[in-house]
Amino acid sequence: MKKIINDPSMIVEEMLAGIVGSYPELVHQVADSRVIAKNNQKEQVGLVSGGGSGHEPAHAGFVGDGMLSAAVLGDVFTSPTPDQILTAIQDSDQGQGVLLIVKNYTGDILNFEMAKDMAEMEEITTEIVVVDDDIAVENSTYTAGKRGVAGTVLVHKILGAAARNGASLSELKTLGDALVASIKTIGVALKAATVPEVGKPGFDLADDEIEYGVGIHGEPGYRREKLKPSRELAQELVEKILADYEKTPEKVGVLINGMGGTPQMELFVFANDVAKLLAEKDIPVSFHKVGNFMTSIDMQGLSLTLIDFSETDHTDALNEAVTTIAW
Amino acid sequence: MKKIINDPSMIVEEMLAGIVGSYPELVHQVADSRVIAKNNQKEQVGLVSGGGSGHEPAHAGFVGDGMLSAAVLGDVFTSPTPDQILTAIQDSDQGQGVLLIVKNYTGDILNFEMAKDMAEMEEITTEIVVVDDDIAVENSTYTAGKRGVAGTVLVHKILGAAARNGASLSELKTLGDALVASIKTIGVALKAATVPEVGKPGFDLADDEIEYGVGIHGEPGYRREKLKPSRELAQELVEKILADYEKTPEKVGVLINGMGGTPQMELFVFANDVAKLLAEKDIPVSFHKVGNFMTSIDMQGLSLTLIDFSETDHTDALNEAVTTIAW
Repeated sequence: MKKIINDPSMIVEEMLAGIVGSYPELVHQVADSRVIAKNNQKEQVGLVSGGGSGHEPAHAGFVGDGMLSAAVLGDVFTSPTPDQILTAIQDSDQGQGVLLIVKNYTGDILNFEMAKDMAEMEEITTEIVVVDDDIAVENSTYTAGKRGVAGTVLVHKILGAAARNGASLSELKTLGDALVASIKTIGVALKAATVPEVGKPGFDLADDEIEYGVGIHGEPGYRREKLKPSRELAQELVEKILADYEKTPEKVGVLINGMGGTPQMELFVFANDVAKLLAEKDIPVSFHKVGNFMTSIDMQGLSLTLIDFSETDHTDALNEAVTTIAW
Repeated sequence: MKKIINDPSMIVEEMLAGIVGSYPELVHQVADSRVIAKNNQKEQVGLVSGGGSGHEPAHAGFVGDGMLSAAVLGDVFTSPTPDQILTAIQDSDQGQGVLLIVKNYTGDILNFEMAKDMAEMEEITTEIVVVDDDIAVENSTYTAGKRGVAGTVLVHKILGAAARNGASLSELKTLGDALVASIKTIGVALKAATVPEVGKPGFDLADDEIEYGVGIHGEPGYRREKLKPSRELAQELVEKILADYEKTPEKVGVLINGMGGTPQMELFVFANDVAKLLAEKDIPVSFHKVGNFMTSIDMQGLSLTLIDFSETDHTDALNEAVTTIAW
């Protein structure tokens, strides 16, 4: 394993210190916790997200005015504990309640729900929006149902805009659930991630082999085959996502997410192929975002996310300026 | 070679189309060229940069209000041609002249100087600021003198702020030359980049070996040895950079740049080690930036850049909001 780290068991603490130390004008660490919170919490519903580490810039990179109030960092690929989540809730509550945005993994659901119960004992009202945008497979390692992946970042952004603009907790819960239904993602992996404490890649792919539908912790996908040109990968992913919508979207937003080890050159070549396919299908795109948002440490590969704007166009909310490290 | 691409010989065109297609609200392609220009050029001195492709998000990701007017894309790791650079100059000129920000490589210097001559025949006044921030080695493959690397992005940002705020061409030239003298960078590589048209890594490193001082095209560094913990890498890089200043800076800005294949987790662990070392040395840091800015395709590794604020503190210019894809 070749990584720029010190002690693998200290990696989350050191990364956390690196994040808050590098951006003290935006975020701070809540004392004695693994919670990264925005400076100057405003009078609004709090938004808390988090999960295992290894997905940077998610989630700490999306803490700031107009997105998350706080992010909780678990160990690498491991849910944060309920007490840590509670700390984030307490810090984020400004008297109007707190919305928890949780990716659909068994451990995360369990711990965020427990933290919700603990918060309610302290009379902090909370709601949970569960994101399960990965349509590649039903049920998987660590998951009952579909997994939550890169589309989560769009939920952060759109709910972040709504919360800043004064939406109530129940309005945010309703909006969040509707958003989740409109967002669909599939990934493809060229090379697995190496968890620092494990020291070797989580799965093996031959030199010319890729896997469709891999999750952000290296969970199995739905097919392996020889590497294909970008335009064929784009076709498979676009068609699979479109087929999963009950009705073909009239208008969409596109998020192309690198898995951590993929150069931006490849993301933009792929973006061009996706754009061509959507144009051929006469589906207008009013929002694009291309980069590394929800990674899997150093995995090589990418995911495509579409958000259906047929019912509600969230382009403005997605374009609103925010002060975060990584949006 | 495992890459999400189509035809390697079309990679720059397809990437360019992917960039402008994804961010039409910010940038556009100048017709029949490899120039990416900002929408709505303002009445100010134009700022043009560029160079070989493969360093994404540089330079196209830094085109926009408050940074570059236009970026010219060469082939992978190859200078753009003078006629392409001239197109960028023509597009960026609003009657107040154009400043060219050029990384110090023989091919780039030659072609940007030729474009400068061509522009002057058309009565467009230009100046060139040459960035040579890489203190690792003197002279190298492709370079006479020091190489221009990640520190170039700080020059884009600070000159971009000054140009937007009304600085004249000669003021920008003076400021740019002073900036270059204050900015110093060294990189370290864990794994070489693979140029798509070549198909294999540009150099070989053993599984436990790193190279200090590697350039952003894989040019040789100054020492190879076994991989060390992040804090020891940080110590070597920080001390080498500080020793290169005539007088220890009283205050600095820090840029930690991933080479394309390095996960953000590692960048932030390293950032934490750098922060500790600067704190031990009582050197205050008023600006930090951590991420992928000047990459080398999929190289694994990072670079550290310091900017000396002893004479002039550019923190405000670095913090001014911009509308670019990647700052």
